[in-house]
Amino acid sequence: MSKDQKLRIIPLGGLGEVGKNMMAYEFGGRILVVDAGLMFPENDMLGVDYIIPDYQYLIDNARRVEAIVITHGHEDHIGAIRHLLTDISAPVYATPLTRGLIEVKLARNGLAGRAVLNTIQAGDTLRLGPFQVETFHVCHSIPDAIGLGITTPAGLVVHSGDYKFDQTPVDNWPTDFAKLAEFSARGVDVLLADSTNAERPGWTPSERVIGPALDEVFREAPGRIIVATFASLIARMQQVADAAVRHGRKMAFVGASMVDNAKIARKMGYLEIPDATIVSLEEALHLPKKEVVLMCTGSQGEPSSIIGRLSTGTNRQFDVEPGDTVVLSSHPIPGNEEAVNKTINRLFRRGANVIYEAVAAVHVSGHASSEEQKLLLNLVRPRFFVPIHGELHQLKRHAVLARQVGIPAENIQVVENGQVLELADGRLTLAERMPGGYIFVEGESVGEIDMDVMQEREQLARSGIVLITVPLDKYSSRLLKEPEVITRGFVSPEDAEALVPLIRQKVTDLVHGGGLDDEKLIADAVRSLLYHETKRRPMVFVSITKA
Amino acid sequence: MSKDQKLRIIPLGGLGEVGKNMMAYEFGGRILVVDAGLMFPENDMLGVDYIIPDYQYLIDNARRVEAIVITHGHEDHIGAIRHLLTDISAPVYATPLTRGLIEVKLARNGLAGRAVLNTIQAGDTLRLGPFQVETFHVCHSIPDAIGLGITTPAGLVVHSGDYKFDQTPVDNWPTDFAKLAEFSARGVDVLLADSTNAERPGWTPSERVIGPALDEVFREAPGRIIVATFASLIARMQQVADAAVRHGRKMAFVGASMVDNAKIARKMGYLEIPDATIVSLEEALHLPKKEVVLMCTGSQGEPSSIIGRLSTGTNRQFDVEPGDTVVLSSHPIPGNEEAVNKTINRLFRRGANVIYEAVAAVHVSGHASSEEQKLLLNLVRPRFFVPIHGELHQLKRHAVLARQVGIPAENIQVVENGQVLELADGRLTLAERMPGGYIFVEGESVGEIDMDVMQEREQLARSGIVLITVPLDKYSSRLLKEPEVITRGFVSPEDAEALVPLIRQKVTDLVHGGGLDDEKLIADAVRSLLYHETKRRPMVFVSITKA
Repeated sequence: MSKDQKLRIIPLGGLGEVGKNMMAYEFGGRILVVDAGLMFPENDMLGVDYIIPDYQYLIDNARRVEAIVITHGHEDHIGAIRHLLTDISAPVYATPLTRGLIEVKLARNGLAGRAVLNTIQAGDTLRLGPFQVETFHVCHSIPDAIGLGITTPAGLVVHSGDYKFDQTPVDNWPTDFAKLAEFSARGVDVLLADSTNAERPGWTPSERVIGPALDEVFREAPGRIIVATFASLIARMQQVADAAVRHGRKMAFVGASMVDNAKIARKMGYLEIPDATIVSLEEALHLPKKEVVLMCTGSQGEPSSIIGRLSTGTNRQFDVEPGDTVVLSSHPIPGNEEAVNKTINRLFRRGANVIYEAVAAVHVSGHASSEEQKLLLNLVRPRFFVPIHGELHQLKRHAVLARQVGIPAENIQVVENGQVLELADGRLTLAERMPGGYIFVEGESVGEIDMDVMQEREQLARSGIVLITVPLDKYSSRLLKEPEVITRGFVSPEDAEALVPLIRQKVTDLVHGGGLDDEKLIADAVRSLLYHETKRRPMVFVSITKA
Repeated sequence: MSKDQKLRIIPLGGLGEVGKNMMAYEFGGRILVVDAGLMFPENDMLGVDYIIPDYQYLIDNARRVEAIVITHGHEDHIGAIRHLLTDISAPVYATPLTRGLIEVKLARNGLAGRAVLNTIQAGDTLRLGPFQVETFHVCHSIPDAIGLGITTPAGLVVHSGDYKFDQTPVDNWPTDFAKLAEFSARGVDVLLADSTNAERPGWTPSERVIGPALDEVFREAPGRIIVATFASLIARMQQVADAAVRHGRKMAFVGASMVDNAKIARKMGYLEIPDATIVSLEEALHLPKKEVVLMCTGSQGEPSSIIGRLSTGTNRQFDVEPGDTVVLSSHPIPGNEEAVNKTINRLFRRGANVIYEAVAAVHVSGHASSEEQKLLLNLVRPRFFVPIHGELHQLKRHAVLARQVGIPAENIQVVENGQVLELADGRLTLAERMPGGYIFVEGESVGEIDMDVMQEREQLARSGIVLITVPLDKYSSRLLKEPEVITRGFVSPEDAEALVPLIRQKVTDLVHGGGLDDEKLIADAVRSLLYHETKRRPMVFVSITKA
């Protein structure tokens, strides 16, 4: 087999979760991109709005990109598409709902019409250059999600996408077992599968368990109900709408992304709500409280979301009141637990009753748990297995599960973002390692911030700053007036006031006593002084002006 | 009943968890303090080392403090005692192990001998001024933990402390059911009980399940075993030591707090390890790897802990190597999940196998789950119930459980720190609200930092700083030379370089074109410029010096 006969499997950049937000498959010089999602910043990534994969490899090889296939419409799979499409131009393939959500996203950024979007149906087979891509339906917490069977002369690779084996999904459309079995019969060379819940024993409950839990909430709620979830959790919107119909409440979507996504999903038939049930927020706020359910974002405790603002009493249009029932229909993204807990506490403090995952089945995961992961492995019976969609510890656990169902350890590759794998001659081997990093997006700027800047921020944040301006006479190098001292984030104003004379004295001594006019040496001396006085190390900046 | 005949119940300051770190009971002008613990900072409390309750009320009433009773030796119950004892002087009562751990802590801070420490035994009845305190043994993840029955003329109050109903505890000493039943027979007016796991269904597993899990780890580990947990989890030390004996490994404690606590616990008979099993770290590092288990801190992913340093390759005495098995025997404190996950990933990346709560029973909670909480309520049958030791959402859940076992809603008081309750004439009522806050400890300073300073730090951290020095001629108000610009944590050095000429130009235009010499106005203009260029809002400081 020539050099060209190998399939290169590339988990592109990302933040911890391997191959989650973007992957590439490369064969015969052509590149197939799968997904283009964003990530949310970790707690120590100060000031960052969101993060996108580092896809410099695609930019460098833009002309070789054959197509972009999107598995489903969640942010972590479509959120970077506007960035990707400004850097490379390639046709996008997505199922109807996914395409609709991409269009909403592009339109909001003034990019409507810039992209070539192709609508596909789960089950379609696409011929994209050297790649034969067989799409198959998977259950997830959004309708119209797909996995991919990718055939090249190097073999057949199955890419699960985010999936679960829900036997009773809300849309009555289970994961396509038949197609998976058919792949298996044909012989699967590599399976790449979702590892998110590899540490959860058993089976993930069906989405359908949420119905009865919502019924109980609707039955008991003495007043208004406010349900918070991700704007892309279309399946959850459907369930809340169904409960609203059953219990005779009117439903309003709140917030731009909720309103837009609900609109597109209804228009395309993925969300069925009688017109009589939907009202505007304005109308909802004038109805008796017992007849209303509002659906909004903020289930992750984001301070600027509607739930975040309600919890701190800073929402504009309405407030949380005693008698309200707030339902957080989601699971905290790792790192958000503290923010979510605080939000729940604040809502309780405002008199609301709060219902969340820990106390009622108002959320279930959209990802397969370990028994489902074993089922997928047994259904597909791949020769090689590559756990993806998870942090390293989850991939390692998924690898343990694969060994339990009989995949030899040497046929399992746990890799990180940027590590290229090659499938050729029936062997899967490690190839070179690319950067595989990620890029911070902050305001309008993409990639101007790096970990060095982040470290400076952390340093600023750890003990604050002390700014000292030292005006010297340019001839005598003596102080023209007292040094000016400003502190921020260091100590309380009263304590700072007590320290300022000491700082001034120190600087004066150095300048007049020591004849010192070096900014760095003065800063060092002030740092020592402050460490001695407070046992803390603020960033000290000294600016000498000579005139 | 006169004014003096009422018992005041005061959950003193703390960080979210109500009554966790310190409580006070007040009767007839005398105050009984229960516990004096510390809290760990939340993710947005930048630069803070740890946090202690705001016990200004005790300082203001220092002469009325009768005694301090400590329920057990964990940091969140004894960690603030050195601060408390420098502010007020009152005798401390604690069981032997708890007392030993307090002594270690005081000695480390040069306070040995400063305090009057009284050793008590679980089951003892203490007469402390107007308080009759009956102590009773409870199971927790440290030996020698107690709960309290506090009798005054106002009635009998039961304070559970941290507890679980372990039927097969490692030290074979279950929670004192008989005493609880006896209280019940006598009639309990108020129960205050641990709410930590109110959201967990069922029963917390016995500590004993850890033994078999450790056996499996010891059996499979191909090389060295490194177990991480809290330095105060004495029960866990015992279990690891037992496994070491069973599997013929030598054991070394690593890190000052581990070594000190193990020493005191062994000396006092709470930790039984054959001398032949214990070796120093030095010795352990020279033994064959398969014959060694090390025990250290860092199970919360703290960067400066031994596990934290091992994960980043910055530990001095030894490194993690392929073949090592690292066991994290703990549960992440809320807010630490991300740090713990990162640490696990880093250890895997260094080639270690990592075993943690999600994949094996190497940790169980020390707190009662909801069925145990119901059992306590049914055993004690209190007239009034006050859930404590939990965040508001956990207290609310505990209140739901209490209603389920038949406590009328009006007899349940969910309060927050600082809210005083009064028991008098067989009624429990809300009294005044005290500050109930907390105090940051940072370096040597206690309480110099407040939330305002924290907010400044967050602002610094969010988008960094820009410092501009503007030297003006004092007569003409014209620039003596170019403004000096320094940025930190704003954009990358290259991007900053590109912005500096724009900033200089802007300042020059303002000064020369607009005749502006106002620091605030110049800062505002630069902020607008930078927002326009970068869509970010750094803190801008302008210092004009006239000469």
